[in-house]
Amino acid sequence: MNIEILAVGSELLSPFYLDTNSLYLTQRLNDLGFAVSRKTVVGDARDDIRSSIQSALDRAAYLFVTGGLGPTSDDVTREGCAEALGRTIVFHHGVLDKIETRFKRRGRVMPPSNAKQAEILEGAEVLNNDNGTAPGQWIPAGRTTVVLLPGPPHELKPIFEDSVWPRLAAHRAGYTARAILKTTGLNESEVETRIAALYPDRPDLRLTILASPGQIELHITAFSSHEESGARAAAGSLSDALLDRLGCFVFSTSGADLESVVGGLLRERHKTLATAESCTGGLLAERVTKISGSSEYFLEGFVTYHNTAKHERLGVPSELVQSRGAVSAEVAGAMAAGARERAGADFGLGITGIAGPTGGTVDKPVGLVYLACAFDGGVDVQKAIFLGDRQQVRFQSAQRALDMLRRNLLGLQAS
Amino acid sequence: MNIEILAVGSELLSPFYLDTNSLYLTQRLNDLGFAVSRKTVVGDARDDIRSSIQSALDRAAYLFVTGGLGPTSDDVTREGCAEALGRTIVFHHGVLDKIETRFKRRGRVMPPSNAKQAEILEGAEVLNNDNGTAPGQWIPAGRTTVVLLPGPPHELKPIFEDSVWPRLAAHRAGYTARAILKTTGLNESEVETRIAALYPDRPDLRLTILASPGQIELHITAFSSHEESGARAAAGSLSDALLDRLGCFVFSTSGADLESVVGGLLRERHKTLATAESCTGGLLAERVTKISGSSEYFLEGFVTYHNTAKHERLGVPSELVQSRGAVSAEVAGAMAAGARERAGADFGLGITGIAGPTGGTVDKPVGLVYLACAFDGGVDVQKAIFLGDRQQVRFQSAQRALDMLRRNLLGLQAS
Repeated sequence: MNIEILAVGSELLSPFYLDTNSLYLTQRLNDLGFAVSRKTVVGDARDDIRSSIQSALDRAAYLFVTGGLGPTSDDVTREGCAEALGRTIVFHHGVLDKIETRFKRRGRVMPPSNAKQAEILEGAEVLNNDNGTAPGQWIPAGRTTVVLLPGPPHELKPIFEDSVWPRLAAHRAGYTARAILKTTGLNESEVETRIAALYPDRPDLRLTILASPGQIELHITAFSSHEESGARAAAGSLSDALLDRLGCFVFSTSGADLESVVGGLLRERHKTLATAESCTGGLLAERVTKISGSSEYFLEGFVTYHNTAKHERLGVPSELVQSRGAVSAEVAGAMAAGARERAGADFGLGITGIAGPTGGTVDKPVGLVYLACAFDGGVDVQKAIFLGDRQQVRFQSAQRALDMLRRNLLGLQAS
Repeated sequence: MNIEILAVGSELLSPFYLDTNSLYLTQRLNDLGFAVSRKTVVGDARDDIRSSIQSALDRAAYLFVTGGLGPTSDDVTREGCAEALGRTIVFHHGVLDKIETRFKRRGRVMPPSNAKQAEILEGAEVLNNDNGTAPGQWIPAGRTTVVLLPGPPHELKPIFEDSVWPRLAAHRAGYTARAILKTTGLNESEVETRIAALYPDRPDLRLTILASPGQIELHITAFSSHEESGARAAAGSLSDALLDRLGCFVFSTSGADLESVVGGLLRERHKTLATAESCTGGLLAERVTKISGSSEYFLEGFVTYHNTAKHERLGVPSELVQSRGAVSAEVAGAMAAGARERAGADFGLGITGIAGPTGGTVDKPVGLVYLACAFDGGVDVQKAIFLGDRQQVRFQSAQRALDMLRRNLLGLQAS
């Protein structure tokens, strides 16, 4: 069965915007066992809307048309659709009442232009919109059902969930289950080598790898035409097999980010953390405190950019900086230990390196970073050379430091 | 003249990926005075590729087809296009040689499957690809020219710049000039009220407003069918008029971000900065140090999450925290002054607030943030209540603190 999405809006044909509604629609349609076979974007042009709808009628069982339902003269999705289907447009007094009431509740009078949003295609069912003025429309048209939805995501999504999902669920094509594994410490080809034998070659089981520097995500989508449990079992069994191959490089099977996983471990164990950063410039602390409730375990962060600060704030001996250099294993270790001690924390993380693009030398190239984790009993230090631009080197540095702490908390070997 | 883009790839019909190549192509086509009238995405399905190309032939002067030129059996753009145009596919020995050489240079033998990438449509001009194995193809077909481009952006962009741009430039429809203003300190409706009279109502001059919490960007696109100077003059004159209405709320007309603008001012004036953060948790320091070369003016950052740290690291009196609360104007001021003094910097920025979603009270709701800028001569403190989620409150807080410093450096009044 073919399902298509048509996004209407001249701004979607500019260099500024992409049609992101289609990602949400695709995911929810996949959940019902439906695949999307084509996506089209046209501007606010009645002829283009008409011709796109007409050609989809030859192919699609469902056509979702998003956008162009506003009150301005630019908004011509209703008109274009009516022409494509050869329907008249009728004025719906119930919808008009709702729009007027919406304005009244806000102490305003409805501008006359909004009356247009009460225009409904002949034969359409109105899909209630509690978050805006334009209702959706469900329009059976021969073999195709055309569904009009407003463009703003906070209007489109509730209408889909409340009114479209139940109508589609009655004819669902199957069940979809998802699983996700997030890894760090391996690069993309290392992950692929480990899991090569597990790559599914079945249309009902898909594995998508999303790779970025410092993090590889494995997204599993399993489909069953019969039952949810079948899809869940297939996703779960692939997930288990992948976990087996990737071991403790997997830090999350829940979708949680590394800072959230590490935060959870600290909270569970009633442990506290302090950070000391040079090249990451606060990114590590920023990621740790992104998590609501992080004040339970995060005490403080030192962004010791200048060498004086490394000495005065963290007690890193000036001689050490002089003899070994600010970017050295010894200084990273002293930063982590200093942060831990001065803050009175259970753990200290230290990062010093060269994020680039300038500042590299032959001996100490851009991307060279030392990472340290101080704990009750010692300090672990790692050296890494990260590839990528300044932001990518900084992200990978913070990621590695967090992973050192994760491994320490879990009693795992260093990666 | 109609121009269309067709993106091929089943991954583009999943919930994970969007066709971002079209943003780049649109911008470059706009530069030549061409508008994109339709974008389509289909999977790696020969029939869908064929039918999409066929229907575009009725409408478009140029059709850009991206993706599906790889070496695997999934890659069927060449075949689908040949069917749509009724052309045969010919084997191009020159292209094969290039592909083989590419592998040899890396010490590898070309896998047999890659030979497929030397298949060229009858009548096509080969567009050289220095960054991958699949060349582009320029295929005149009656009133339409079909251009095949590989999907990876680092291959597509150089081919477009080197081979497509010159061919199109010979028939350019005009000239496009752009200008951008970035503002902070006003919300979207305040910006719109100020500039309402300037909103252009001409097809050759467009104003796009990109609004996010803490930053409103105004993008101007001006078009002239005759001459570049005309487009530049139109963009410049609208930009000047907008600048006149928005005044010092505009922090950049170069596209630069606020941290970059503030960094430039500090560098010019040979001034230094230290930061003290509570609810932003390091985001302010992270943004300042995102700029390469920030070590010239950024000395250090204090992320004093715990109240003990505010006292010990910054000298904020414990009584002050007790009497006024950690989230108070007095504590923000003391943090900024403490950071400035302890680091020996010219400026100190301090932030304390409630980023949420928890931790708010009736007196001190989520979003309440105090910001302070300490300088030679005193401390400015501002109170703000920011709307949005945790990340949005944090971003707006860092943004406001940076803007206080910008205004101080420029001798402007507080916003």
